[in-house]
Amino acid sequence: MSGVRALLFDVFGTVVDWRSSVIAKGEAVGKRHRVEIPWPEFADAWRREGYSQAIAQINLGEAPRQDVDVLHRAMLDRLLARYGLDLPEDEVVDLNMVWHRLWPWPDSPSGLTRLKRRYTISTLSNGDLHLLTNMAKNGALPWDCILAAELFGAYKPDPRVYDGAARLLRCAPEECMMVAAHEQDLQAARARGFHTAFVHRPREFGPGVVVPRPADGTYDFVVANFTDLADRLGV
Amino acid sequence: MSGVRALLFDVFGTVVDWRSSVIAKGEAVGKRHRVEIPWPEFADAWRREGYSQAIAQINLGEAPRQDVDVLHRAMLDRLLARYGLDLPEDEVVDLNMVWHRLWPWPDSPSGLTRLKRRYTISTLSNGDLHLLTNMAKNGALPWDCILAAELFGAYKPDPRVYDGAARLLRCAPEECMMVAAHEQDLQAARARGFHTAFVHRPREFGPGVVVPRPADGTYDFVVANFTDLADRLGV
Repeated sequence: MSGVRALLFDVFGTVVDWRSSVIAKGEAVGKRHRVEIPWPEFADAWRREGYSQAIAQINLGEAPRQDVDVLHRAMLDRLLARYGLDLPEDEVVDLNMVWHRLWPWPDSPSGLTRLKRRYTISTLSNGDLHLLTNMAKNGALPWDCILAAELFGAYKPDPRVYDGAARLLRCAPEECMMVAAHEQDLQAARARGFHTAFVHRPREFGPGVVVPRPADGTYDFVVANFTDLADRLGV
Repeated sequence: MSGVRALLFDVFGTVVDWRSSVIAKGEAVGKRHRVEIPWPEFADAWRREGYSQAIAQINLGEAPRQDVDVLHRAMLDRLLARYGLDLPEDEVVDLNMVWHRLWPWPDSPSGLTRLKRRYTISTLSNGDLHLLTNMAKNGALPWDCILAAELFGAYKPDPRVYDGAARLLRCAPEECMMVAAHEQDLQAARARGFHTAFVHRPREFGPGVVVPRPADGTYDFVVANFTDLADRLGV
């Protein structure tokens, strides 16, 4: 790994715990309006249908590229109707912004701070640049720079995103390491010549969903968290 | 100024003291090779001919767009020949990288840290993204994100740079304030609807060059440094 100069991080699920953050925000909204909504189910649907599936559709060319805020908002409107919750516009806007204020996993700020000593650390997320910037401010994430798929007019796992990030950092692909909790992302990065580190986030999808941990050797590193990654890289 | 959300900073001269940094690096090289070169003159020519004039030519369409490292290197090769200094390639590469390691003005890290409490603070420089990222690491500059003219395929004062930055931050132009030590930059930003803050850096071009301070009221703010700007903005 001596040639690696830049660590590029997936963010949602890898650096931040989107699910707990969205559930907590939803519960606060529900309490204020005295309504009972199954917020874990709400959060999972918002993530799956409003983001993951929407981006997959865009990547298939079945839908035009959209800002992530717009994708989130479209799904939020459908979910509010589905669960029968009628909120004033300013509260809908605020709820949609929860994706800008996701909580880091406990090891993220300290682990990233260690990794930053030796490497350039950057986001490489499908979230838009302003969203990632807001999230870093809120979560004390010490990025050296913010790179987002939108800069390359595509969404991961489109190869243009990995190629574009390496080009902006003036790194050869083998000087880059993708760090993610998702194998699809790592496999796409590896196909472009990046090194890869899998971070196991077993609670990303909640207590009921088992996230398998790939065997050691599947990627350059298979680690439990960013502290573990920093230890393995000797920083 | 209550609507401003993002402060966008020119970097060379505004945030960092390029001239002292380049002179000091040159003097170390000269000492090692036991040669006497007028490094202030060398630094000024490198900046003026190798960067400012090269970018002006590109903006006039007289030369193709180039990476800043490439512009700096081309001029460095000419200057080394001009002053009769024959360096091994690894030392030429290292000397060219001085532009990635420029020293902040003394008020920059602390002033930016204060401004960051309320505003999104970003670079908006003609320096390339990787150069600005390296400079921030070296100089402890606490940017929220790194925006560079290269993202917009142009160099300041081309309007695409200001428009593109506002778009990436999802800010209306009037929610942005350009902060610079150069009036051309501020005037171009203002023409795109940005607020403007002039920072007076009287030593940018060395002790022999007087940098006029515009009259109060010429821009939204005319300040002595970033501490002064933070005071005026009440953060």
